[in-house]
Amino acid sequence: MTHLPDQGPQPGVHDLGYARLDTDRLERTGDAEVVYGAGKTPSQVVELLRTLHATHPHTAVLATRLTPEAQSAVAAELPEAVVDPVGRTAVLGTPPVSRGTVAVVAAGTSDAPVALEAATTARVFGAHVEMITDVGVAGLHRILGVRERLDEADCLIVVAGMEGALPSVVGGLVGVPLVAVPTSVGYGASFGGVAALLGMLNSCAPGVTVVNIDNGFGAGVFAARVARRAAPREAKDES
Amino acid sequence: MTHLPDQGPQPGVHDLGYARLDTDRLERTGDAEVVYGAGKTPSQVVELLRTLHATHPHTAVLATRLTPEAQSAVAAELPEAVVDPVGRTAVLGTPPVSRGTVAVVAAGTSDAPVALEAATTARVFGAHVEMITDVGVAGLHRILGVRERLDEADCLIVVAGMEGALPSVVGGLVGVPLVAVPTSVGYGASFGGVAALLGMLNSCAPGVTVVNIDNGFGAGVFAARVARRAAPREAKDES
Amino acid sequence: MTHLPDQGPQPGVHDLGYARLDTDRLERTGDAEVVYGAGKTPSQVVELLRTLHATHPHTAVLATRLTPEAQSAVAAELPEAVVDPVGRTAVLGTPPVSRGTVAVVAAGTSDAPVALEAATTARVFGAHVEMITDVGVAGLHRILGVRERLDEADCLIVVAGMEGALPSVVGGLVGVPLVAVPTSVGYGASFGGVAALLGMLNSCAPGVTVVNIDNGFGAGVFAARVARRAAPREAKDES
Amino acid sequence: MTHLPDQGPQPGVHDLGYARLDTDRLERTGDAEVVYGAGKTPSQVVELLRTLHATHPHTAVLATRLTPEAQSAVAAELPEAVVDPVGRTAVLGTPPVSRGTVAVVAAGTSDAPVALEAATTARVFGAHVEMITDVGVAGLHRILGVRERLDEADCLIVVAGMEGALPSVVGGLVGVPLVAVPTSVGYGASFGGVAALLGMLNSCAPGVTVVNIDNGFGAGVFAARVARRAAPREAKDES
Amino acid sequence: MTHLPDQGPQPGVHDLGYARLDTDRLERTGDAEVVYGAGKTPSQVVELLRTLHATHPHTAVLATRLTPEAQSAVAAELPEAVVDPVGRTAVLGTPPVSRGTVAVVAAGTSDAPVALEAATTARVFGAHVEMITDVGVAGLHRILGVRERLDEADCLIVVAGMEGALPSVVGGLVGVPLVAVPTSVGYGASFGGVAALLGMLNSCAPGVTVVNIDNGFGAGVFAARVARRAAPREAKDES
Amino acid sequence: MTHLPDQGPQPGVHDLGYARLDTDRLERTGDAEVVYGAGKTPSQVVELLRTLHATHPHTAVLATRLTPEAQSAVAAELPEAVVDPVGRTAVLGTPPVSRGTVAVVAAGTSDAPVALEAATTARVFGAHVEMITDVGVAGLHRILGVRERLDEADCLIVVAGMEGALPSVVGGLVGVPLVAVPTSVGYGASFGGVAALLGMLNSCAPGVTVVNIDNGFGAGVFAARVARRAAPREAKDES
Amino acid sequence: MTHLPDQGPQPGVHDLGYARLDTDRLERTGDAEVVYGAGKTPSQVVELLRTLHATHPHTAVLATRLTPEAQSAVAAELPEAVVDPVGRTAVLGTPPVSRGTVAVVAAGTSDAPVALEAATTARVFGAHVEMITDVGVAGLHRILGVRERLDEADCLIVVAGMEGALPSVVGGLVGVPLVAVPTSVGYGASFGGVAALLGMLNSCAPGVTVVNIDNGFGAGVFAARVARRAAPREAKDES
Amino acid sequence: MTHLPDQGPQPGVHDLGYARLDTDRLERTGDAEVVYGAGKTPSQVVELLRTLHATHPHTAVLATRLTPEAQSAVAAELPEAVVDPVGRTAVLGTPPVSRGTVAVVAAGTSDAPVALEAATTARVFGAHVEMITDVGVAGLHRILGVRERLDEADCLIVVAGMEGALPSVVGGLVGVPLVAVPTSVGYGASFGGVAALLGMLNSCAPGVTVVNIDNGFGAGVFAARVARRAAPREAKDES
Repeated sequence: MTHLPDQGPQPGVHDLGYARLDTDRLERTGDAEVVYGAGKTPSQVVELLRTLHATHPHTAVLATRLTPEAQSAVAAELPEAVVDPVGRTAVLGTPPVSRGTVAVVAAGTSDAPVALEAATTARVFGAHVEMITDVGVAGLHRILGVRERLDEADCLIVVAGMEGALPSVVGGLVGVPLVAVPTSVGYGASFGGVAALLGMLNSCAPGVTVVNIDNGFGAGVFAARVARRAAPREAKDES
Repeated sequence: MTHLPDQGPQPGVHDLGYARLDTDRLERTGDAEVVYGAGKTPSQVVELLRTLHATHPHTAVLATRLTPEAQSAVAAELPEAVVDPVGRTAVLGTPPVSRGTVAVVAAGTSDAPVALEAATTARVFGAHVEMITDVGVAGLHRILGVRERLDEADCLIVVAGMEGALPSVVGGLVGVPLVAVPTSVGYGASFGGVAALLGMLNSCAPGVTVVNIDNGFGAGVFAARVARRAAPREAKDES
Repeated sequence: MTHLPDQGPQPGVHDLGYARLDTDRLERTGDAEVVYGAGKTPSQVVELLRTLHATHPHTAVLATRLTPEAQSAVAAELPEAVVDPVGRTAVLGTPPVSRGTVAVVAAGTSDAPVALEAATTARVFGAHVEMITDVGVAGLHRILGVRERLDEADCLIVVAGMEGALPSVVGGLVGVPLVAVPTSVGYGASFGGVAALLGMLNSCAPGVTVVNIDNGFGAGVFAARVARRAAPREAKDES
Repeated sequence: MTHLPDQGPQPGVHDLGYARLDTDRLERTGDAEVVYGAGKTPSQVVELLRTLHATHPHTAVLATRLTPEAQSAVAAELPEAVVDPVGRTAVLGTPPVSRGTVAVVAAGTSDAPVALEAATTARVFGAHVEMITDVGVAGLHRILGVRERLDEADCLIVVAGMEGALPSVVGGLVGVPLVAVPTSVGYGASFGGVAALLGMLNSCAPGVTVVNIDNGFGAGVFAARVARRAAPREAKDES
Repeated sequence: MTHLPDQGPQPGVHDLGYARLDTDRLERTGDAEVVYGAGKTPSQVVELLRTLHATHPHTAVLATRLTPEAQSAVAAELPEAVVDPVGRTAVLGTPPVSRGTVAVVAAGTSDAPVALEAATTARVFGAHVEMITDVGVAGLHRILGVRERLDEADCLIVVAGMEGALPSVVGGLVGVPLVAVPTSVGYGASFGGVAALLGMLNSCAPGVTVVNIDNGFGAGVFAARVARRAAPREAKDES
Repeated sequence: MTHLPDQGPQPGVHDLGYARLDTDRLERTGDAEVVYGAGKTPSQVVELLRTLHATHPHTAVLATRLTPEAQSAVAAELPEAVVDPVGRTAVLGTPPVSRGTVAVVAAGTSDAPVALEAATTARVFGAHVEMITDVGVAGLHRILGVRERLDEADCLIVVAGMEGALPSVVGGLVGVPLVAVPTSVGYGASFGGVAALLGMLNSCAPGVTVVNIDNGFGAGVFAARVARRAAPREAKDES
Repeated sequence: MTHLPDQGPQPGVHDLGYARLDTDRLERTGDAEVVYGAGKTPSQVVELLRTLHATHPHTAVLATRLTPEAQSAVAAELPEAVVDPVGRTAVLGTPPVSRGTVAVVAAGTSDAPVALEAATTARVFGAHVEMITDVGVAGLHRILGVRERLDEADCLIVVAGMEGALPSVVGGLVGVPLVAVPTSVGYGASFGGVAALLGMLNSCAPGVTVVNIDNGFGAGVFAARVARRAAPREAKDES
Repeated sequence: MTHLPDQGPQPGVHDLGYARLDTDRLERTGDAEVVYGAGKTPSQVVELLRTLHATHPHTAVLATRLTPEAQSAVAAELPEAVVDPVGRTAVLGTPPVSRGTVAVVAAGTSDAPVALEAATTARVFGAHVEMITDVGVAGLHRILGVRERLDEADCLIVVAGMEGALPSVVGGLVGVPLVAVPTSVGYGASFGGVAALLGMLNSCAPGVTVVNIDNGFGAGVFAARVARRAAPREAKDES
């Protein structure tokens, strides 16, 4: 009565008991499955990463939302993995040769964990990544100073908490596809990121799309898919 | 059983049956009572304005939130009144000699009704008013082009709907006291101005205060009180 | 006191009194300004469309959220305009030669107004558009039958009301960048589209981004920007 | 002043001081009372289970929402009880001979605690249970592969977190009565299961009913009542 | 640009231009498609009913949420249809021979439209229906007086607005499967039925499931599916 | 199928087809049933009032929430009824000899409809009523001027919209039982009375209870029940 | 800069540095101030109780919301105090001779802390208290069995969590003034007591008033004020 | 992959790795940057304070929201700093000669942390500060007793939790610009300060502005900017 009953082996599924890896996903969508670390034990994270890597030896596999304990376990048991304690990610294997550029723009230093999760994800999913940090709207000169770098990207990820105004400002400067990520940074009536989320959904700049609060991973997947399809610059210049 | 019973005359109260004017308020707070037009009939608005004007003949009295019908009635019966169909206000009498300057900044043309209500209120309450319109955050060059005018005001009123990002941008440019007014302009998840209200309450620029959605009147009262107390420019230059 | 004061001519701004066109936007972001019809009179819509078209004679200009009255006025006064009564749009001029393909996927026939607004917008902003309608999740065979068409697009726009489940299902089938549009279709605890919005923000399929409720225009702008940058198919096949 | 005063013995009520068992419930509704473990001490849980079992020796009695400490206490003091650490339940005594089949369908492995609580409850309340797990909507082939098993059940319990889309997909495949259980799995704007709850309430598939967030117990009671009344298969085939 | 493009004929789909009937649904789920009248013109409703009836001549087809105008059109053009102006439904054709009994219980007379929609739906979907009305919780003697009738049903539909307490009271009296329907009856902080919805989701009686606010149709479909599978009474008596 | 089926005559219930009067309520709770006018036709209101009056000829019967049309119908057909167009009530028959005093306190003139509904209800339910109006918290001298009248009442009903602060101020002045009624007066983030409701629920003055938004009727019933049980003044003076 | 500056002694105020006791309140409202224990250290609670007792030696003084540590400190330092660990209260001194009766009715055993806080408060504020517990609406026979005791009280306090239906049921049985207290007992979409609060505000039984979630203290103050003013039974029988 | 990449030195920015100080802000807005302590380690707080002080040696620099650990570290390493454990602030250096007066008014002792944060901020930003505490609306005599002190200030900061009624009462007494600060003090349906926030936004007293919940810092910055611009008293007397 107390266990998930055996359903027998299924093609394209790797059953670890506490999780079943969808090993067919790479073929179906072009991207391998990812280890979402929240709620998993350190040893589960290590085993899942190792299994994914064995299935996809020629690309990089990613784990996100790792607790400090899981980061230590990965560092100890998978020494070739690259662990980022701020972005709470681990990467095992070599990312694909990058195509296209994603620029990750962050309003404040407290947005760094989400921004780094987005950046690492975009790299693992095949894009070149540029970081542009600490360009909050209360200091416009900093944003204006990076306008050209923004314009050269194939897709922008703009990360901001509090009132979430940065995507509107950036979206008014350039016409590059822009994914906004609200963060839970804030207090009082920020309601854990809802104020920033609503701000971004109501942006007066056209062409802004939004992902869930703190969802750097989702933004990274999306932006990489856009960037790696983009035509190289000389082709674009004609558009 | 069907009428508000007579409570006898009270000092400082002018009883019109459907409303009781607090004629002492001018002495107590320095500002006369105002006719809030929502829910009142055109003839009630006319009578209230006339009574207030008779009580305070040496200053201007104000009516807000007037329906088109009430505006017509005021124009017909009180020809000396100045009626603003966009801001939905009427002013009867001569405003006091202005002291200090309030700059009213609006993001879009659809914010004009609220911005004009704020501007007219601030004038009636004794401040000089400058209007700076159509400076939404999606076009930064327009905001940057008015930076000096913003800096010379004694108090700013910044009106914006949708994501409500303009106060953060203005608040990062100058150190003038800033009152933000969210408007109900927007759609979908703007929730009738709640998105803008939350954005302004969570502004990353320090020193931003907020009034209720569409409350141009409240912002005008507050800003005029700040501006008319301000020391003249040469005194301020020493601060 | 009742008018927006004159601020003098500004470069890149065309002032019509009730609105100021940002005629520089095309240069800044690659896309011309658009007439947002909600809250505007039919004659204002006609004048704004005519002015925009005169400024940008070599491309198409767009008006959205047109009332039936505004649609009639445009049809009468600008006979060369193409008016869509379901999508509530009007287009004046010839759209640019399309680059890349946007597939607009809609769950039900009641989502058609938003889906058509998205489709028309994407065309005006330079993408080829394919419509795939009536593929709600309660009839999976219809979605599975169009899998190949989904996979060939450069960007997907998925429109759904009620529980907003369609983007999760589509996002699990293909790896194409996907913009989800919640609609206000529903009743009871759908809260005017909030249920669909939350469903899309919490999608279990990675790489889904979201725009505001009923914001087909925003999705169209974004998707066209992605599609027209995309490398042609033979280049993509190598990725 | 500090104690619940004695109210004297009442028929059909077994008073333990900190709780009063409604021992008549079995006769009134056909089902015995259950021990809801949240907020109870381990020894209270043990005593309540023992008392219920003594009152109803010929059937199984159930305890839910047991803390790890309470699970250990039950295992030590009532060795004949079956404890499920994932579903957080304990069962004492032999469930009735099962009539009818409940299929419990779960989207992800993180939904397992709620799915197992539902499954164990349905068994104790007299139904045969089938588990179908890890069939999230982002991998449709897995759902389509179990269509026949879904169709053969007398009642379905569909458990999902995040956007809660699974009941819509399942409800479009088969016409079996379907109870949806939203779980608190998710983050950001999932609001502890509210996104999934709203998604299920707004399902476009007709005939879906919903229970409270994480309420596997309620779904299990309901589904068992439906299943054990169902006519055997040969009778149904005529309908 | 302005029309849904032709997608060619599809098997199991009847395309009317403004709607596509899923004529395969009967085979897939055992129930025919239904005309949801909200947002449709009277002539569309008539045409859809006629088409559905032609496809399924041996059973009854249903239209819900009909405006008074649509009801008149149906009565005039389809004289054999049975129109219910309170429940806002129309039925064309002969319902199947009923199997099992659904009891529809309503708290107040203002809940009648939702209760009748549920009752008519359950009949069309193959169940016998009993109506038990005006048994609000503020008059317990009325509920207690119908206890036996409640106990004899195969499935209960309990409709209530305001605080939504009736399902808890009924659910404590009998062990029959119970579907609760919150209605939007109420005022002030009832929030259009949300108070009743929350009350029902949090019912202290086990085995209560809930549908969306005012969704009598959904409750009727579900309850009929439960009732028509139920074993006849003599078989149940053994359970 | 289209009518509520006949359930046969029941004792204590007077069935009018569209409503069933609970004529036993007077005996059970000491108060007769009331006609809630919202959603009823003028002729239904007239008939219900006439029937209630015939059943209870020796006391007064009450109808609330009457539309202007219903008020006219009552005035025309039941000329002995007292109709209050502001409070939207009608009273037929002679109220009982009053026992105890309810003071109804209202913040602004726009709260008059709710205050008068409460006052008329309390009179019909047997209390003497005093009205104290226009004592908003922004003019404290007016509240302080009526302190003695407040202290002499047996129960207070305090009606306020906007921020709902008046009950806190009154509750700090006297120790009389106080029922607070939030009204939907306000705009912007008042959310139709929710701001006032929350303010009253969180009152810092102990002993404040609250009814639903605009529910003057409920407050009147409650306060009359308290007042008519109160010991006469000379007895109270000893307490 | 770091301390609250001295404001000098004020009449009717006892300044303890971290709190200022309003020792005049007894005269103003008939009730002494109370120690609200949440957020206070154990020694602060002891000192405040001792000071209040010294000021009011001839009555009882009350402390509420005491942590276990504060309860131990009171028991050790003020041995004559009566401490209730379930209701989290302490009482020092002899309550006044009781006048009138408050009946505290609780739905479940988990509502006991709030019910006991209400009961102890009502006693300290001068009423006789009867406890009636474990009478949830899912077991109506228990409520019906205490109908007479309910009817004999001068004021009822009805405490319930989850859907908060008990006040509606009790309010339909008797005409005694009824104060409802929602508790935070529940899970999922109970939202910490909001579901119960909304249920009570929307009660279909007239004459129900509500206090804040878990606010047994406020209900106790209010009910005692009602009860102690009530005329003795023989006087009431005439009403 | 794991670090924020070097962006090279920028003028007006002091890069500490984990934070970048905007050392130009003093010139741009007249006020230096502030250390927001939440989420920073004690040693980061010390280093940031030291760096800011070195950049601005002739004025005071401020740190807010310091944990007890950060307060100890500052006290140990920067002995000349003034640390306020209640307001959780530290000040290093000599505040400017004060101009104008800010009066900080607090409703209860539990509002002290927010009130002191506001007071210290206003001092560091150049205003003289008066504290007026424990003047809740439930004891009006205390507010009335300080009316003159309120009237003499140049700007008021009014801090209150629970229902947030104090600003309305104060705003009705005097015409001084008033900034309201809601605090998270309260329980049940106070929703962490939302009830107070809504109360203040809906204040019936004109000229009240609001900052975010618990945002004493923002109120202090704003009020100081107002006060230090104010003309000295003799000049104001003429207004």
